[in-house]
Amino acid sequence: MRALVLDGTVALRDVPEPALGPDQALLALRLGGLCGTDLELARGYKGYRGTLGHELVADVVRCPSAPQWEGERVVGEINLACGTCERCVAGLRSHCAARRVLGILEHPGCLAERFTLPVQCLHAVPPGLTDEHAVFTEPLAAALQILEQAPLDRARREAVLGDGKLGLVVVMALHARGIPVTAIGRHPAKLALVAALGVQTSTHAPPPASFDAVVEATGSPDGLRLALALVRPRGTVVLKSTVHGDVALPTAALVVDEITLVGSRCGPFPAALAAMANGLVDPRPLVHARYPLAQAEAAFAHAGRPGALKVLIEGPAAGTS
Amino acid sequence: MRALVLDGTVALRDVPEPALGPDQALLALRLGGLCGTDLELARGYKGYRGTLGHELVADVVRCPSAPQWEGERVVGEINLACGTCERCVAGLRSHCAARRVLGILEHPGCLAERFTLPVQCLHAVPPGLTDEHAVFTEPLAAALQILEQAPLDRARREAVLGDGKLGLVVVMALHARGIPVTAIGRHPAKLALVAALGVQTSTHAPPPASFDAVVEATGSPDGLRLALALVRPRGTVVLKSTVHGDVALPTAALVVDEITLVGSRCGPFPAALAAMANGLVDPRPLVHARYPLAQAEAAFAHAGRPGALKVLIEGPAAGTS
Repeated sequence: MRALVLDGTVALRDVPEPALGPDQALLALRLGGLCGTDLELARGYKGYRGTLGHELVADVVRCPSAPQWEGERVVGEINLACGTCERCVAGLRSHCAARRVLGILEHPGCLAERFTLPVQCLHAVPPGLTDEHAVFTEPLAAALQILEQAPLDRARREAVLGDGKLGLVVVMALHARGIPVTAIGRHPAKLALVAALGVQTSTHAPPPASFDAVVEATGSPDGLRLALALVRPRGTVVLKSTVHGDVALPTAALVVDEITLVGSRCGPFPAALAAMANGLVDPRPLVHARYPLAQAEAAFAHAGRPGALKVLIEGPAAGTS
Repeated sequence: MRALVLDGTVALRDVPEPALGPDQALLALRLGGLCGTDLELARGYKGYRGTLGHELVADVVRCPSAPQWEGERVVGEINLACGTCERCVAGLRSHCAARRVLGILEHPGCLAERFTLPVQCLHAVPPGLTDEHAVFTEPLAAALQILEQAPLDRARREAVLGDGKLGLVVVMALHARGIPVTAIGRHPAKLALVAALGVQTSTHAPPPASFDAVVEATGSPDGLRLALALVRPRGTVVLKSTVHGDVALPTAALVVDEITLVGSRCGPFPAALAAMANGLVDPRPLVHARYPLAQAEAAFAHAGRPGALKVLIEGPAAGTS
């Protein structure tokens, strides 16, 4: 079968059909998304080699251990946890020390005709949601996770740095929760997508210490330094960008201004599906292009171009929605 | 009068008697302390030039605006706030954007025969406390501030990195609150000071992700990287060290492990005085040496030597306690 593989270069390859592990489901891709982490992986982040992709909506083809899932349209959490270690037992499955991660760590990704996930990772997609909604479940969950970790709903002046895919989804998620947020980016055309929702936007950095909380989602090594400058003393910076390598930071400023810096990664899929099903968040305006799997290399190149937002890849089970 | 002045080098100089500003008290030094920040200032941190010193116990010599303070033995908060800006009104006086800071920013420090502080910065020393207790009020308050900013009393496994002056005071403060803490440092003789209290100590770094919370108080640029490695996913790192310049950090690890990093600086003086008055914390074993002000240059050199703990400087009002 065909798969988009990172093996030094990023190329469409013929790979063997995946074998089903215990308690796993075989999935046929409907729609997959490319995200900033995929681009970072191609630059060497985490040293991953294998099939890319961790944003998906798919059909369950086969599921011997739980056949009631067969035929379901699903999204999938990306952390494959052991289920038995201290962290898993404590409810921190996404931090399992033995975890594999779909398309990121020791488990082939979803940008293939077929792929596998543990049944425990699956969530049924509500019938009212299109595939183009559902493929945003993973990044929207990551955006909602911010509110699980930091009390941003108490902040009066809040900013999101970065008008890329993740930044705009974060803006949509916070705005949907009624949080007054300013979207700061470099691209008026992208910011217009959230300005249309009534969000305040800016293409220049406001004065230092202007915000009670800042979410850093630029994907750039420079973003965190700017976020630290924009937050007021005793304020909160939420860091979402995973940047390959070290970043030089003025840590004394963190101490002197008593800033709290919160690293935030994966989030709750049910909350993300519900936010879209209830009409609170509609990320579909972020879609820039759709490519069939056969043109996945062109899709990856497109995703890497400056200014690109969400690029989707249609698998063999792609619907019309 | 004589003062320990940083003006390129650190030297005892003759300087003019300080003039009293409105609502200020003239203070005669009883006992001052040297801290890691003083050493950093001498290396260029913040570009400060002037009289050093911000740890003190002193006698109030003159206080025209509030004469009831005259003759009192006091300790002093180090932030001179404007009292009228948005932050001051919001209760964040230590973050006043127009603040001066005793011996650190635009206000002469306490390592002089006489110095000034606003009346609002003064706290009377309870009669039961010796000067050697009271001179630790500022660092002990900074240690107690950790508990104001991070919910460490819920952590089961907690570490303090660094067995210097601040690290050991932090260990004492957390231990006094009943928090199970491991003190990690490089100097068995220093760690012995807290081992004597029943604190677990270690001279080697435990395995990665061993702790729910880690307080970084090494004073070294390398400390934060080690702290981030020692904390478990979703854990908390409290940063106390102010290090001059940038520090290179693997920020992706903060995101992937969803770590919260809390910068923490000054703290509550009344809580620190009470903790010592109640006998919960006795920092006096940290005193390595006392010098008269006339030998302040030797005191400063002593404080900078590897392995030195608290070095005190006796002013003209020094008592026998």
